[in-house]
Amino acid sequence: LERGQRRALWEKFLDSAAPARLYAGDEAGAEEILQQLAQESSARGEVYLVGAGPGDPDLLTLRALRLMQQCDVVLYDRLIAPAILNLVRRDAERMFVGKQAHHHVVPQDQINAELVRLARQGKRVLRLKGGDPFIFGRGGEEIDTLAAAGIPFEVVPGITAASGCSAYAGIPLTHRDYAQSCVFVTGHARAGGELDLHWDQLARRGQTVVIYMGLQTLPALCAKLIEHGLPRDWPAAVIEEGTSPRQRVFASTLADLPARVAAEKVEGASLLIVGEVVKLRERLTWYRAGR
Amino acid sequence: LERGQRRALWEKFLDSAAPARLYAGDEAGAEEILQQLAQESSARGEVYLVGAGPGDPDLLTLRALRLMQQCDVVLYDRLIAPAILNLVRRDAERMFVGKQAHHHVVPQDQINAELVRLARQGKRVLRLKGGDPFIFGRGGEEIDTLAAAGIPFEVVPGITAASGCSAYAGIPLTHRDYAQSCVFVTGHARAGGELDLHWDQLARRGQTVVIYMGLQTLPALCAKLIEHGLPRDWPAAVIEEGTSPRQRVFASTLADLPARVAAEKVEGASLLIVGEVVKLRERLTWYRAGR
Repeated sequence: LERGQRRALWEKFLDSAAPARLYAGDEAGAEEILQQLAQESSARGEVYLVGAGPGDPDLLTLRALRLMQQCDVVLYDRLIAPAILNLVRRDAERMFVGKQAHHHVVPQDQINAELVRLARQGKRVLRLKGGDPFIFGRGGEEIDTLAAAGIPFEVVPGITAASGCSAYAGIPLTHRDYAQSCVFVTGHARAGGELDLHWDQLARRGQTVVIYMGLQTLPALCAKLIEHGLPRDWPAAVIEEGTSPRQRVFASTLADLPARVAAEKVEGASLLIVGEVVKLRERLTWYRAGR
Repeated sequence: LERGQRRALWEKFLDSAAPARLYAGDEAGAEEILQQLAQESSARGEVYLVGAGPGDPDLLTLRALRLMQQCDVVLYDRLIAPAILNLVRRDAERMFVGKQAHHHVVPQDQINAELVRLARQGKRVLRLKGGDPFIFGRGGEEIDTLAAAGIPFEVVPGITAASGCSAYAGIPLTHRDYAQSCVFVTGHARAGGELDLHWDQLARRGQTVVIYMGLQTLPALCAKLIEHGLPRDWPAAVIEEGTSPRQRVFASTLADLPARVAAEKVEGASLLIVGEVVKLRERLTWYRAGR
């Protein structure tokens, strides 16, 4: 048993009928209760909801790596790089539950149910998600099911794509002179193809807007931001497969970026950064992909 | 020499007069150039701008830990926990340049100059910052000076306080039903004591607002958000020393939070989260500080 489990076991022991038996001189009875509780504890599974970061395995946290090397089974998404998956314990079971926009290979409620089922078998279940599980990761929904089922869980934050991509692209998200705040949204279109965003809030100076999953809707995103008041030459960049050896950065303007991205056949997971901080990249680039 | 330095050395060699000498049969001359370039390379210092995450040493990235164990000198902030500083190479020089709001122990331009000076001595300089260097870390300004001085640098993203604190407090930053976006701002007052924030943008439903460094101005922040349209009972939480063994979470409402935080004598580094996701904490708490 691990430290936390041991402590939980002793707490349960003190809460049980065992102390009364001990006071009554029934040591055998108390020991029997302890044995039973210990058996339950070791059979009790747990789920670790872990952010794997933006792609570079070097950006895993120490905690993520340790849990990857302790788990019995891992459920992972499409966005988990093979180089990261290779760090999971060799004999752990691997389950691909990858999602893509509008096309969940495994529907969300089935993933939730699977986590509960595996934990009830007493397994240490690693739910590995790209980026940070609490920023556009639907992590909250997954652990909500666990909480309702009484399954113990733990959440390990990861480097979110905005942090990882901005660092490796040389684009600070905030800067005293250019951006005093930053906003994270998704560029996911709804089922009808409509973007449901607060354009007046996004089309502002003095901030950085980071748009996750905005590659498919990039032309509409840029057009709307211009329509709501940002200049056509407002800086914007797409970072494809950020932090990986295949990273490509396209820094341009709202007016020109969509054509540039189309011409360059950008297809990998991409992040869009809009704001004057994008200009800083000219001076602050340091990462050379594939070096 | 490290791999990157070796490669840079060979590139310089091929760019130099050496190949022409080799073609001319002057091997000794070519070798002399190589020796000279090698000497310059090993003398050339470098700066690593590294995010140390929110406090729990387990949330350091693998890359951060490796650089901490390779550097010659570390410049660190007030927010770096002793448990993290202990992981820096034992014989590395330690320089405290800690900042506090409105009271920089070492002024920013002096820090910038110090980084240049140390790198020019050929040192591997670790600039260790709490959280993520590109989110309210003024990291952009520090490497801008380096870029201008021609000093090589690298940026290592860290878990920003918003990610770390939300994970350890059981408060997802985004959630399909409650928050489709999140906004990061600082609660720093300007010199005159005025908060310079776009209140209409922050006082909205359907999003999560994360306020860094907002403990001093908490009463004003909550009052302004109510004044601009959020309900008095809108959920808000302060997380003190998030992810550390001393973490405390105060989940309340905009109207009641300031009095509660004052009563509990909150004084450590704190993050304010405003939005309906705060209510999820009731079900999603898992971390017990000091366990």
